[in-house]
Amino acid sequence: MHVVVNAAMSADGKLSSRRREQIAISGEADFARVDRLRAEADAVAVGVGTVLADDPSLVRHDEAHRADRRGPEAPPPARVVVDSRCRTPADAAVLADDPATYVLTTDAAPDDRRATLSEAGATLLTAGDDRVDLPAALEALAAEGVDRLMVEGGGELIFSLFEAGLIDELSVYVGGLVIGGREAPTLADGDGFVEAFPELTLDDVRRLDDGVVLEWTVAG
Amino acid sequence: MHVVVNAAMSADGKLSSRRREQIAISGEADFARVDRLRAEADAVAVGVGTVLADDPSLVRHDEAHRADRRGPEAPPPARVVVDSRCRTPADAAVLADDPATYVLTTDAAPDDRRATLSEAGATLLTAGDDRVDLPAALEALAAEGVDRLMVEGGGELIFSLFEAGLIDELSVYVGGLVIGGREAPTLADGDGFVEAFPELTLDDVRRLDDGVVLEWTVAG
Repeated sequence: MHVVVNAAMSADGKLSSRRREQIAISGEADFARVDRLRAEADAVAVGVGTVLADDPSLVRHDEAHRADRRGPEAPPPARVVVDSRCRTPADAAVLADDPATYVLTTDAAPDDRRATLSEAGATLLTAGDDRVDLPAALEALAAEGVDRLMVEGGGELIFSLFEAGLIDELSVYVGGLVIGGREAPTLADGDGFVEAFPELTLDDVRRLDDGVVLEWTVAG
Repeated sequence: MHVVVNAAMSADGKLSSRRREQIAISGEADFARVDRLRAEADAVAVGVGTVLADDPSLVRHDEAHRADRRGPEAPPPARVVVDSRCRTPADAAVLADDPATYVLTTDAAPDDRRATLSEAGATLLTAGDDRVDLPAALEALAAEGVDRLMVEGGGELIFSLFEAGLIDELSVYVGGLVIGGREAPTLADGDGFVEAFPELTLDDVRRLDDGVVLEWTVAG
């Protein structure tokens, strides 16, 4: 599976403020860029923290150019939530309507929560005892036909994917504002690396809206 | 006074790992760029956290092109530590030898620590009761002849300067690695903004070493 991470951060590397409220970091041109990236993906993933903070639908704004690129039969990209305890609310936007939603979860998820999400229409893929076993979960997703996965955050999921060596590309919009805050979420949170830092190769740099898009490839 | 912040961060906005060890983020071309920036400054400042973590000397590697730019009589840039409690160790590299070192401190600094730093050769400028009153401290520095100040970190000092509206330019080298860590120091830490985020205008983008330099001007 090919995994592409896309995120927008402030000039100081934050995805949002310490209050975890959504902040307009990019603009219309970047929204269109992200929509094109989604068009190329078989599925779009976020962590449960992002679902709880932002309640994203992960539905694309415009499916027309997806048909252009992938053929008229191409279904819209599926939605994926990485959610070890099935904490996604039953009324979350990511579960509403089409397309299909997969919840990657663990044996630690309570039965009632599993049942609630299944009833809400999600397909549960279980891998791992306590934390989601990401390599196994992505294999299960691949078995569902997901060859290209786009990850939109948050920083905990992005870090875990880097830690597991599962990311191929990192696309970052850097916006013209400072958010600050030692507790504000960043592009890669988790415990952090203290050695063997993942290395990136800069493939492309281009100005967009009032900021810049940096396209990195993960080395190795 | 014109205040320029310069720092190197990972692709995810970190200045170092959660262990606060120095990490090679940029390379030789960026070191030369930073040395040129220092050449243009009357003083180079860091926060005491950076002194305690990295023990930088803040001495430029090469004074030759400073003479070219500012005339043969130009002294090397002074050194500044923002240190509310005078915690800078007496044997810190920033106090050793020339050039002059200013410690911006407060009335809360213990007398014995003040005496120790004065004996070690520092000039103490006191502004504020508990936290350094940055506008007043920078005025005191200006009275010492500092018209252009370069700030090299860390994230706590950079945030405080943004909070006080004292920064004119922000120059960031973004390197090709991921550090991660919800507790790792970032470009702007502190409490963080939750509204009225400082806005930046992107003046220049250029590739350097294996990363990119983003030159921002602070709006307003």
